[in-house]
Amino acid sequence: MTRTATAHPQQWLLRTQGVTAPEGFRAAGIAAGIKASGKPDLALVFNEGPDYGAAGVFTRNQVKAAPVLWSRQVLNNQRLKAVILNSGGANACTGPGGFQDAHATAEAVAAALSQWGTETGAIEVAVCSTGLIGDRLPLAKVLAGVTEIVHEMAGGLVGGDDAARAIMTTDTVPKQVALHHEVSPDANWIVGGMAKGAGMMAPSLATMLVVLTTDAVADAGMLESALRRAAARTFDRLDVDGATSTNDTVLLLSSGASGIRPSQEDLDIAVGAVCDDLCAQMQADAEGVTKRVTIVVAGARSEDDALAAARAIGRDSLVKTAMFGSDPNWGRVLAAVGMSPFPLDPNRISVSFNGSPVCVDGAGAPGARDVDLSGPDVEVLVDLGLGESSAFIRTTDLSHAYIEENSAYSS
Amino acid sequence: MTRTATAHPQQWLLRTQGVTAPEGFRAAGIAAGIKASGKPDLALVFNEGPDYGAAGVFTRNQVKAAPVLWSRQVLNNQRLKAVILNSGGANACTGPGGFQDAHATAEAVAAALSQWGTETGAIEVAVCSTGLIGDRLPLAKVLAGVTEIVHEMAGGLVGGDDAARAIMTTDTVPKQVALHHEVSPDANWIVGGMAKGAGMMAPSLATMLVVLTTDAVADAGMLESALRRAAARTFDRLDVDGATSTNDTVLLLSSGASGIRPSQEDLDIAVGAVCDDLCAQMQADAEGVTKRVTIVVAGARSEDDALAAARAIGRDSLVKTAMFGSDPNWGRVLAAVGMSPFPLDPNRISVSFNGSPVCVDGAGAPGARDVDLSGPDVEVLVDLGLGESSAFIRTTDLSHAYIEENSAYSS
Repeated sequence: MTRTATAHPQQWLLRTQGVTAPEGFRAAGIAAGIKASGKPDLALVFNEGPDYGAAGVFTRNQVKAAPVLWSRQVLNNQRLKAVILNSGGANACTGPGGFQDAHATAEAVAAALSQWGTETGAIEVAVCSTGLIGDRLPLAKVLAGVTEIVHEMAGGLVGGDDAARAIMTTDTVPKQVALHHEVSPDANWIVGGMAKGAGMMAPSLATMLVVLTTDAVADAGMLESALRRAAARTFDRLDVDGATSTNDTVLLLSSGASGIRPSQEDLDIAVGAVCDDLCAQMQADAEGVTKRVTIVVAGARSEDDALAAARAIGRDSLVKTAMFGSDPNWGRVLAAVGMSPFPLDPNRISVSFNGSPVCVDGAGAPGARDVDLSGPDVEVLVDLGLGESSAFIRTTDLSHAYIEENSAYSS
Repeated sequence: MTRTATAHPQQWLLRTQGVTAPEGFRAAGIAAGIKASGKPDLALVFNEGPDYGAAGVFTRNQVKAAPVLWSRQVLNNQRLKAVILNSGGANACTGPGGFQDAHATAEAVAAALSQWGTETGAIEVAVCSTGLIGDRLPLAKVLAGVTEIVHEMAGGLVGGDDAARAIMTTDTVPKQVALHHEVSPDANWIVGGMAKGAGMMAPSLATMLVVLTTDAVADAGMLESALRRAAARTFDRLDVDGATSTNDTVLLLSSGASGIRPSQEDLDIAVGAVCDDLCAQMQADAEGVTKRVTIVVAGARSEDDALAAARAIGRDSLVKTAMFGSDPNWGRVLAAVGMSPFPLDPNRISVSFNGSPVCVDGAGAPGARDVDLSGPDVEVLVDLGLGESSAFIRTTDLSHAYIEENSAYSS
């Protein structure tokens, strides 16, 4: 699949590669025995340089998993050579021993990479975990896996794809994408990325692990700025179930291997486009999803107000179950938006579903009950009639499959 | 069924009567043809006096139904002779015409009661509606029903029970209770009540209509004080799905017919006990409920903090689906409480399920995964380890039946 991004039709190309699309990155994914199922559960992303700039954003949950505490700490140096990621266990709520496990894993990665030929310190290794909260990881298996995975690293599509598969939990498909910026016919730089995340998707980052890579030449300040801006407009606006994980991590690593230094604006565009695409992939694969729902709130006094109203609607169980039933029950949208944390004028609110007006100035529109919502995509547009600002969030319906999947996750 | 309340074993008796248990009240419920199903859909509660004091609390949703706007306005006089309630339509988001319908209904009740022998003004008639948002009521049917229902009014159990049945929507059972305070063997005063509400149950009042009656002698200020206090500690702490209705209304009417003037404290106890019992009935009958879940947060710095944490847990879809699956997945409780809007120390948080410790000081307790949650009642106790304050909320699991019921409500 090759898609042309709308911003610069000739120059920007989205491709379905992942973290190894940019020059200077290797990756691998293996089954280390952490998951009882024997499925792949350990991934490594390795930056060969020459640059090692890095930035990260983490969960806003006050209960933070051990790997988040570790990775946040090492990111203070704005420099990473590798990221080790495991599925099969969150290493959250595991006490001081859990933090020691995360540290030991980083040490093992550093030792293995050093032995392999690249001098690496544990402080240059970020750790990400995902899975059930509350159990210690089987450390011996993790450490044995680290030794093995360093030998498995490969360039090109294979390694990136294996890594993307090894971080899946309830995901049904791996999620990766890369944006190529062709500066001239024989010069280009790339931002690639992979993600996992299908539930516990939240207002402040979805429950997810994301590793982004680029071969652009960019100092850590540029990376940090591009990442924060992108996360705020993409992952922060994906809300599947209002739950925020203890493990959310988004990392951006640069190798500088393309030798091309993009402007901050171009880096922002590229990182933003990759994050947006990964978001759409996570929304489409969210637990039990039968509808992809976009909530657009317009006519707000500020973007913050618009976003708060959109979140209120997108988290409403009654709106979400109506969507599952393809039921154009617009009154539930009004009831949800009425709980917005800013003053509203109910008599100015208008709503449309997929472009069909269902409520005008606070009262029902003719034919509102007959709007067809049977397709997989629903756009809910709410005009508050108060100002000029707007914002949107991505959410999903609330389905039987969501209940099924989440009532039996740990057992 | 006769239950003895714990506070004053000899004097306070809870009985399964409703709004007509106190002296001076009549009620009726009929099928007026508002519901397409032909089920009862119109209820009247009539205060014969000699007093007509009244107080009310209403939804905090900014989108308020027409009957809420009407009733709030007439309550400014702190005086009611009657309450007319309909199911089969919320009369919300119905524009100026919807407000005229609510007003016309009150006028019709006043005229019918006046003709029947009790001089009544529309301003002494509160109106409550429940059902689908967005459609105008079939006014001709409502007005014809008003004429009929005034003739149906009866004292004793029958009228109250009929009224409680006529306000049901997705409720499976009528909800009513009365608390008798026997001051002496031959003198007692009573608070009775009925409620409807099974979904769209919210932080600020559940989606519900509640009418409370008393034959105590109490001025409007006492009624207002008792009602606000009771609502804040009962209905405000029932949260089935985080959604807040446009129509929530709780009314308290006093006839003074017992001739007994209780203290404010005794009135508070009685109104509080009736509200608490109605809350438990609504929780037990909540849409699709298979578990009654109580979330207790202790060790907080303040009651507000405790309540905020309890709400965060009680609204978490992942906690609620785990409960449905009888899965002691305590990590989800930690993840939910980690989003509390005040500073926490994750390493001090302890959790128990039905008295069995599952997490101590932020890490798993031995045997935590084996705790049996297969019964219908689950108590989640979270000790934050920060202070001495506590609070609890009532919620439910998130089940297939909730999805089923709510994906097909309007269609």
